[in-house]
Amino acid sequence: MVLIEPEEDGNIGAIARVMKNFGFKELILVNPKCKIGQEAYVRAMHAKDVLKGAKIVEEFDPNEYDFVVGTTAKGGGFYNVRRFSITPRELKGKLSGKVAILFGRESIGLKNEELEMCDLVVRVPTSKKYPTMNISHACAILLYELSGLKEERRLAKREEREAVLKMAEEVLREIRFKKTSQKKTILLTLRRVLSRAGLRKREAYTLAGMFRSIRNAMKNEGN
Amino acid sequence: MVLIEPEEDGNIGAIARVMKNFGFKELILVNPKCKIGQEAYVRAMHAKDVLKGAKIVEEFDPNEYDFVVGTTAKGGGFYNVRRFSITPRELKGKLSGKVAILFGRESIGLKNEELEMCDLVVRVPTSKKYPTMNISHACAILLYELSGLKEERRLAKREEREAVLKMAEEVLREIRFKKTSQKKTILLTLRRVLSRAGLRKREAYTLAGMFRSIRNAMKNEGN
Repeated sequence: MVLIEPEEDGNIGAIARVMKNFGFKELILVNPKCKIGQEAYVRAMHAKDVLKGAKIVEEFDPNEYDFVVGTTAKGGGFYNVRRFSITPRELKGKLSGKVAILFGRESIGLKNEELEMCDLVVRVPTSKKYPTMNISHACAILLYELSGLKEERRLAKREEREAVLKMAEEVLREIRFKKTSQKKTILLTLRRVLSRAGLRKREAYTLAGMFRSIRNAMKNEGN
Repeated sequence: MVLIEPEEDGNIGAIARVMKNFGFKELILVNPKCKIGQEAYVRAMHAKDVLKGAKIVEEFDPNEYDFVVGTTAKGGGFYNVRRFSITPRELKGKLSGKVAILFGRESIGLKNEELEMCDLVVRVPTSKKYPTMNISHACAILLYELSGLKEERRLAKREEREAVLKMAEEVLREIRFKKTSQKKTILLTLRRVLSRAGLRKREAYTLAGMFRSIRNAMKNEGN
C-alpha cells in the first residue's frame, strides 16, 4: 500500500487499521504532507504496529514491483487513456509477485504522470452524483477484493442434508395428499432451499431434529 | 442504513459520505449516544444532505422492512446460531423490497437479541489477527457489494416468509419439547435458512402448505 503525498494523518491511521483487518502489512508513505500524530494512532486502533512500521520515502520507484496499481475516482472518458480503469473485482487473477497499490492525495488524487507509470488503474464504481470516496474507504474496498481470506465454514455435507430430507419424507408419509406430485414438489423445494441457504452442520441437525420430533409426535398420536 | 446507538459522530459522517458515494440516502440513527457535531459534518464532505436527512428514532421496528440484515465482526462458532453469517458478496440475489442494514455500536456491536430479529447476518471476512473493522469501512464494503444489486427476482416478501414460520410454529406447538429454547432455536434456524436461500414466492407457498398439511394431520389424529 503506497500513499503518495498523504495530507491527513487520520486517514493514514484508518488505512493502517483496514490493512491489518485484511492481513496486509507494508505501508509506504511517499513524501507525506502531514505529521503522523495522535489522530493517526487513534484511528489505527489495534493496527499501531502497521502504522509504526510504515516506511517514509521521498520518491516511489515502480521498478521495484512486478505490478503497480493506480487508483482514481475519475473515469477515463474516451480520450484519457491513462485513466482507463477496471473495477476492484476485476483485479483478481491479474496480479502476482510484488504488487504496489498507489493512492493519491486526498485533494487531487494521483497526477497524470503518476497514473502513467501504473500497470493497471482501478476505480471503484461509484455514484455519478458523488464519485469521490474517502481514501481509506476506497482502500477498504480494494483490500477486501484482494484479500484471499477464506472463511472456514462447517457446511452440512450431503448426507447431513439428506438426513433432513429423509426425516421430512417420513413426516409427509403420514399425510394423505390428494396428488403424489404434491409430496414430490415439497421435497424438491426443501432440497433446493437447503442447498441455496448454504446449510450449516448445526442447522442440519436442528432441522432433522424438528422433523424427527414431528414424526414421533404423529406416531404417538396415531397409536 | 440503520445505526444502533452509534457512539462517534465522525463515523456517522463517514457513513453518510460512503452512502452517497454508492447512491444510498436513507440513514436512520437509533438512540444515538453522541451529538452530531462538527466532526460528523467534516467527515461527510459533500454528503451533508444525507447527514441532515438522517432520521433519529428511539427504537427500531423490523416489521417495517422486508429484510433486516445484521452485521457482526464475530463468527458463529458451532453453537451460536444467531451469529451464523454470510459474506457481503453472498447478499446478492437474497434481498428485495424494503431492506434495513443494521450496524451496532462501535464498542460492542449488535447485541444477541438484536441479531435475533435479523433475517440475515453478514460478516466481512477479515484477518483473525484483527477482525474488527471500523464501522464506516465495513459499511463501505457492504454498500459496494449492494450497489451492484440489479437483479429483479420474485422473492418472497416478509409476510410470505412469516406465513411459513407461523405455520411451522403451529406444528411445533403440538410437540412437547423438554426445553422451550429448543423451539426457539428451530424457528430461528428456519428463519435464517429461508432468508439465506433467497426464498421465492412460490417456494414460500409450498413450504407454508407443507406445515399446514402437517398441522391438519396432527389435529385430525388428535381428535
